[in-house]
Amino acid sequence: MTAGDRFLIDGLQYCNWSEKIFRELRAGGITAIHVTICYHENFRETIANIAQWNRWFQDFPDLICPARTADDVRRAKREGRTAVIFGFQNPAPIEDDLSLVEIWHQLGVRFMQLSYNNQSLLATGCYEAEDPGITRMGREVIREMNRVGLVIDMSHSAERSTLEAIELSSRPIAITHANPSSWHDVPRNKSDTVLKALAGSGGMLGFSLYPLHLKGGSGCTIRSFCEMAASTAELMGVRHLGIGSDLCQDQPDSVVEWMRVGRWTRDTRGAAGPLGAAVFPPQPDWFRNNTQFAGIADGLAEVGFSASEIDGIMGGNWLDFFERSFGAAGQEQPAQNPAARRAASKGV
Amino acid sequence: MTAGDRFLIDGLQYCNWSEKIFRELRAGGITAIHVTICYHENFRETIANIAQWNRWFQDFPDLICPARTADDVRRAKREGRTAVIFGFQNPAPIEDDLSLVEIWHQLGVRFMQLSYNNQSLLATGCYEAEDPGITRMGREVIREMNRVGLVIDMSHSAERSTLEAIELSSRPIAITHANPSSWHDVPRNKSDTVLKALAGSGGMLGFSLYPLHLKGGSGCTIRSFCEMAASTAELMGVRHLGIGSDLCQDQPDSVVEWMRVGRWTRDTRGAAGPLGAAVFPPQPDWFRNNTQFAGIADGLAEVGFSASEIDGIMGGNWLDFFERSFGAAGQEQPAQNPAARRAASKGV
Repeated sequence: MTAGDRFLIDGLQYCNWSEKIFRELRAGGITAIHVTICYHENFRETIANIAQWNRWFQDFPDLICPARTADDVRRAKREGRTAVIFGFQNPAPIEDDLSLVEIWHQLGVRFMQLSYNNQSLLATGCYEAEDPGITRMGREVIREMNRVGLVIDMSHSAERSTLEAIELSSRPIAITHANPSSWHDVPRNKSDTVLKALAGSGGMLGFSLYPLHLKGGSGCTIRSFCEMAASTAELMGVRHLGIGSDLCQDQPDSVVEWMRVGRWTRDTRGAAGPLGAAVFPPQPDWFRNNTQFAGIADGLAEVGFSASEIDGIMGGNWLDFFERSFGAAGQEQPAQNPAARRAASKGV
Repeated sequence: MTAGDRFLIDGLQYCNWSEKIFRELRAGGITAIHVTICYHENFRETIANIAQWNRWFQDFPDLICPARTADDVRRAKREGRTAVIFGFQNPAPIEDDLSLVEIWHQLGVRFMQLSYNNQSLLATGCYEAEDPGITRMGREVIREMNRVGLVIDMSHSAERSTLEAIELSSRPIAITHANPSSWHDVPRNKSDTVLKALAGSGGMLGFSLYPLHLKGGSGCTIRSFCEMAASTAELMGVRHLGIGSDLCQDQPDSVVEWMRVGRWTRDTRGAAGPLGAAVFPPQPDWFRNNTQFAGIADGLAEVGFSASEIDGIMGGNWLDFFERSFGAAGQEQPAQNPAARRAASKGV
């Protein structure tokens, strides 16, 4: 595979979307992005967010298109567009209603976090003092997400809840945007115990490029980041790794406050708590926008990853995961990775 | 106080309301009832439930009236009507929005359970396997409920969450409908530890007459019930006791299923779990409807309660609690009970 053939897939972004950013996605050759369409929005508010994306798809058909399957992503690549996959950072859009899991899948949503920072009806967030694991409703929702093909994402969840979600889920789950806490020890990063369990169940980790998740913060070097990727590959196996940059380009700081505070507190200082002031920190200079995404491959090469390993981390592993994860249970493609799938289609 | 002067207050009912039941309330001389207007309903659905009550108040002005204060209850007694106080068994109507606490208080709601059987955004229910206590949002909501005068009710909550709510709340809380688990040991009844903490903080327990909370179930005798009341008075002090019958008169069995299953599971058998089939058990023959409410006083007399103690349990203690609890923080009436208040108003 040459660099031009490579699938470039970002496992999570939440930019302040605009024609400028859509053009940067194309300039950067990004094949697909998983975009957050809900932090705290309820059912009706999230519908409005999808309606906004529908308008963007209509307005910029040469730049972006919706994707619900791995095949949609492949088609987008052939057509020179960036495929957009919807996801929730919070189960708020299902409110208290199990039947909304399937409704959202029908509307194209493919990832849902079971909790975002706080306790949800399903699981615990990483900033709660206590983590009792998956709740009664959480067990029901996991079963239903497994059935319809909505991926469980535990990026912002607490440790016990995450381990239980991996255990209870009959299908691999994702941590779309986080790093190992052995590299940078903050509540949002993940322990080796979690990362090994994730890999052991066939799941995916997307490496985050959000400065609060990086050793050295905004000053983190691409070398340090890629060395972290190499040691994580030793822990988890390289095929479980991708990028989930958490890029929040062009967002005003009021959006960080919304993420943290939602509607559950008025105490913007207290809620900021362990995270400091509610401002977006500057991105590392080697990843300020999507035009720099492909450059991460060079850093991975420098720390010793092979070309095919880099293909996997830069997008191939996410594509394989989409293949296995986005359909109804029992409808998964038998092939477990693009190479095997290609071989199967050639009858070899 | 003669029997006719007595305040008869029921700390929780959820009947299938009709003119027949409103007439039985009057026939029974019931001064006030706290009625459940939400099990699982969200904001908008609960608004519809209030609108239904508004129609009933319009249709039956000689029988019932809304009450937001202890004075409203006293006025209803003078006018020969039954005062109706609204409450939620679940925090679902505030959804994820702290600011809805005050909105509901403005609409006349005076009680809210922090959790109903399951984990909520605020606290844990009594049928979860684990109870991590009050959540981050729960702490904010308790502060806000204290501020506006919305009473915290922990009837369906788990033990640790209940103890933490008592501790965190700056104002007395209520367990509107439950019995001591030392008398009948089921998850919905309360330990002596909880009951002592409740009394120690000035809170109220309403004795439940729902058969699943009664020793002997539907066959429980009034003697057994009143002996339980006597031993609870020794534990908690009599002024912390009232009735919260949990009367669900004329409800179809589909309502039990709604209470238990809501929208969070489709597994009606599994969800019924420890509770058995989703049917309403028959009421004890000595409390089938509101016309029999006043008769409980006779049973209390037989186990040795004094007339003034019976006045308290049958309604006076709830009235005193309403006085202290329904106003904004800092606006409480200084008098702690009706006798003291009467004395104060006479300048003695």
